[in-house]
Amino acid sequence: MNAERQDRPVREVSIAAMRDDRLSPRQDLVVVEEPLEIRVARAGEAGPGTAVSITMRTPGQDIELAVGFLHGEGILRSREDVAGSRLCGPAGNVVRIQLAPGAGLDPGQVQRNFYTTSSCGVCGNASLEAVERMLRSPRVDAALTVTAALLESLPARARAAQDVFRDTGGLHAACLFDAEGGLLDLREDVGRHNALDKLVGARLLAGELPLSRCVLLLSGRASFELLQKAAAAGIPVVAAVGAPSSLAVDLAERTGILLVGFLREGSFNVYAHRERLQ
Amino acid sequence: MNAERQDRPVREVSIAAMRDDRLSPRQDLVVVEEPLEIRVARAGEAGPGTAVSITMRTPGQDIELAVGFLHGEGILRSREDVAGSRLCGPAGNVVRIQLAPGAGLDPGQVQRNFYTTSSCGVCGNASLEAVERMLRSPRVDAALTVTAALLESLPARARAAQDVFRDTGGLHAACLFDAEGGLLDLREDVGRHNALDKLVGARLLAGELPLSRCVLLLSGRASFELLQKAAAAGIPVVAAVGAPSSLAVDLAERTGILLVGFLREGSFNVYAHRERLQ
Repeated sequence: MNAERQDRPVREVSIAAMRDDRLSPRQDLVVVEEPLEIRVARAGEAGPGTAVSITMRTPGQDIELAVGFLHGEGILRSREDVAGSRLCGPAGNVVRIQLAPGAGLDPGQVQRNFYTTSSCGVCGNASLEAVERMLRSPRVDAALTVTAALLESLPARARAAQDVFRDTGGLHAACLFDAEGGLLDLREDVGRHNALDKLVGARLLAGELPLSRCVLLLSGRASFELLQKAAAAGIPVVAAVGAPSSLAVDLAERTGILLVGFLREGSFNVYAHRERLQ
Repeated sequence: MNAERQDRPVREVSIAAMRDDRLSPRQDLVVVEEPLEIRVARAGEAGPGTAVSITMRTPGQDIELAVGFLHGEGILRSREDVAGSRLCGPAGNVVRIQLAPGAGLDPGQVQRNFYTTSSCGVCGNASLEAVERMLRSPRVDAALTVTAALLESLPARARAAQDVFRDTGGLHAACLFDAEGGLLDLREDVGRHNALDKLVGARLLAGELPLSRCVLLLSGRASFELLQKAAAAGIPVVAAVGAPSSLAVDLAERTGILLVGFLREGSFNVYAHRERLQ
């Protein structure tokens, strides 16, 4: 009745469906949402490490999620920074990443990224400053340009590959394409940030960062955090099916990312760096 | 060219619009996204207080947002707990809430809610335990039942009142209705959690919690966090235009909330507590 499927992150639930003014029992699929705690242990540290974040995510690719998240936060730069990783905890809902010697877990950095409770003395200083710093992210180092036809073909290519969304309607997708529009990877999650973290984490572990020849497609809206993660991964083209926010436009402008919104077959809007469009 | 409008949280930007294979310049509106830091000062404390969270939000109703957030976290129970509130910081992006005597800011609670960096000794203990605790939220104390016709009328009522979304397509909405379907309040934000926090915060400041005669409409999907906030505010009926997650269904089940998903005119699905449907 409430069985989780082993192979895919969906759960079958018994619902009452209202159709044509009649309620009738039905089986439905909902996407699984569970907490994941991300812990980081310094090089050589044997203990449980430091909890740096908890996120509500769809189970699966949890190590990639943790790695991608830590990359976006500037704690992991490449796979050489990862000495080990494992999924642990009572319900497999903790990822522990062991840093390699030389990989720096800067406690000040963790504090800035994870919104601790310690008073910083000056009203609004520490954490707002972190957002400011993210806005000053370095420019994406890539010469990539794309055609309008390629961009417009992406949503259909993603839909053909999207799996869980069709069943549940409950997921955000992040899709990575090569410069010719070939689908490299697609990740789905209840949280849009998680989907992108999983995507980037997998590439980092494969030694493929920066993603300077890649195009990112987002199934929903484009927010500041998503652009910040894309910039950190060196992705020069970001296309969203939904709307961008003001700060997403700002960050794309500053980091050299071609930002496209409202992407459909036959139309889209260019919000930043139109020169990457052939 | 990039002017923010004083009256509404939108910014006019210059874009290139691709239509019929032609790119042409156009003015477009994007929704404003800015960071907000939420700080709490204990009763009688004169300093800047303790930073408890930073959220990316659409400016406007920031004090309501902070109050609603702190209510969902169990730090504020009623308006009597609020001795003062002000918007401060260099860009008006800090809210400082002063607690009244007797209102308890439990440091352990803050630690659990805001995902600090301190190692808690046992892998996965502190923060995952917090999620477990939220799943054990008390049941909503309300006898409210609603008709299918009332539920199906809500999206059109909300659309008639939704303002910024029409311009930008970039917002999530949370709408509060009375038991007869009268619109009590509607808040829009780049973050769906913020929209709900603003809604609940305004009601708390008006002394109107718990919302045991109210129906909540969500413009998107129903996640765990949204259900947790609804349960904390005592809302017995939650209807979402999008899909629910597994943990949202679990929480609705445990707290006595009628949870409806995929709400359209003419159809919807009931995921929990069908007995509230007449």
